[in-house]
Amino acid sequence: MGCLKLLASERSVGKLAKFRGEDFCIEEAKADSFEGVDVAFFSAGASRSKLLVPFALQARALVIDNSSAFRTDPAVPLVVPEVNADSIRPENRLIAVPNCSAIILLTAVNPLRKLGTLDRLIVSTYQSASGGGAGMMRLLEEETKAVVLGTELPESPLGTRYAYNLFSHNTPINEFGYNEEEAKVIFESRKILSMPELRLNVTCVRVPVLRAHTETVTVEFSGPAPDVDEVRNLLASSPGVRVVDDREANRFPTPLDASGQDDVLVGRIRQDLSNPNALCMLVSGDQLLKGAALNALQIAEHVLKC
Amino acid sequence: MGCLKLLASERSVGKLAKFRGEDFCIEEAKADSFEGVDVAFFSAGASRSKLLVPFALQARALVIDNSSAFRTDPAVPLVVPEVNADSIRPENRLIAVPNCSAIILLTAVNPLRKLGTLDRLIVSTYQSASGGGAGMMRLLEEETKAVVLGTELPESPLGTRYAYNLFSHNTPINEFGYNEEEAKVIFESRKILSMPELRLNVTCVRVPVLRAHTETVTVEFSGPAPDVDEVRNLLASSPGVRVVDDREANRFPTPLDASGQDDVLVGRIRQDLSNPNALCMLVSGDQLLKGAALNALQIAEHVLKC
Repeated sequence: MGCLKLLASERSVGKLAKFRGEDFCIEEAKADSFEGVDVAFFSAGASRSKLLVPFALQARALVIDNSSAFRTDPAVPLVVPEVNADSIRPENRLIAVPNCSAIILLTAVNPLRKLGTLDRLIVSTYQSASGGGAGMMRLLEEETKAVVLGTELPESPLGTRYAYNLFSHNTPINEFGYNEEEAKVIFESRKILSMPELRLNVTCVRVPVLRAHTETVTVEFSGPAPDVDEVRNLLASSPGVRVVDDREANRFPTPLDASGQDDVLVGRIRQDLSNPNALCMLVSGDQLLKGAALNALQIAEHVLKC
Repeated sequence: MGCLKLLASERSVGKLAKFRGEDFCIEEAKADSFEGVDVAFFSAGASRSKLLVPFALQARALVIDNSSAFRTDPAVPLVVPEVNADSIRPENRLIAVPNCSAIILLTAVNPLRKLGTLDRLIVSTYQSASGGGAGMMRLLEEETKAVVLGTELPESPLGTRYAYNLFSHNTPINEFGYNEEEAKVIFESRKILSMPELRLNVTCVRVPVLRAHTETVTVEFSGPAPDVDEVRNLLASSPGVRVVDDREANRFPTPLDASGQDDVLVGRIRQDLSNPNALCMLVSGDQLLKGAALNALQIAEHVLKC
């Protein structure tokens, strides 16, 4: 049995967190916090990771970093275990967890590479509040409550109301007109799939849903699209994926069904009527689980069992 | 000054509705209701239109039908006035109002035909409750209230919860895997644009928003995509469109901003990085106004002034 050490910023020092019924006291994350640590999970933003990961590595911890700090570093594997666990080499002590939208997308899309060569992905996201942190989930709940009860809206850092509304992902826009989230999905998908030339069309939108991300995905192949039934069967037997595709009952993935689930739900699998080389799908995955914490744990499990 | 006659099913007979401060008593819509009527607006579903429109035409009314009953009839113009008012001929006494998602899409996309030939549209919708009628708006509000207050959820005809959730459009799925809403957008866009070969990739999703539809749109041209600034300028001067595209301030169309507005909001105008022939946009329009009632009124105004 290992032991658990919970680290956070000064602000949280002394707070208690429960794990398997036991209370753990939160300590401050500092340069000397990592002595004797075997595996360190970082999930506190890029600047915090840049500051402290080097100390964890120096203390010989295996570091799984959930932030964007090291994702673009060619020396750091960026891993969705179902997709590219084989990119982890024995000497890697720092492994990055990809962006949540990219993880959910690729868990669903990667199996299709057995049936054809990917040429282009066209993705629109329906992202939940949890991707913006606990604060954004609280904001959505408080705003919704205020709208429902007719009371005053709480203060919001967003430029627009969130309750009963949606908005283009609230990250800075680059010179090409893409927000940071979209740029991450494009860059990271190419790196994870080892397809630096893969063409991606991505639009990221935040919707008033609490914790699972949904995505409409068109997969264009370099030749004729595989048969829909074949795709459905392949996905049904692919790790990390659950097919929810009942046309009769009109039952397809929803973020509520995906919430709390390890698997990424995939449905609406159909031929793209506008392109014989393309398929369409609807994908939904828990942003906090497969989109973050679960993926990080799976990476650690993979490394430790090797 | 004309007079106003309000017709509905037996259920509503005797109820009052206000128009410009005056109360009007609702009468039952019957075969003989249309004597002396100059313009009849129908908005009560396809089966009701199929039953009663012939009587209105017989009574020599101009009929503007908001249902899907006659949209596919080659003899009936299907009109978004900004796009194809010229398809209305003097002999046409029945004109169909298109599907709301198609109207909002084409109001934004049609002006681009001045800059290139459309080859393919790729659309994901974020549709509001209002598209499902007043009952669905009430359901979303009641469910949301129940979730916020922790009380029992109301009964729902949907197979899934709507509050803090989203779902693939709840209309029957055809043999190709497309729901009715998607099939309408595909068929109607081709008819309205007089482009029977136009390729369309459409995914329709219902989100927990009350009354405006949002759409991510990729426009593929048959040659290189026009310059983004040129497109922005063109759209800014196009009727029925308002450009909301402030990259610095991260201010783009939202359904809340579009609600109650006549114009369709367009933003996130950018080059598709995955295809030199394509542009991406985010579009939001009031489903009840431009997506339905306003478009019907505009058709009547167009015909009456001709």
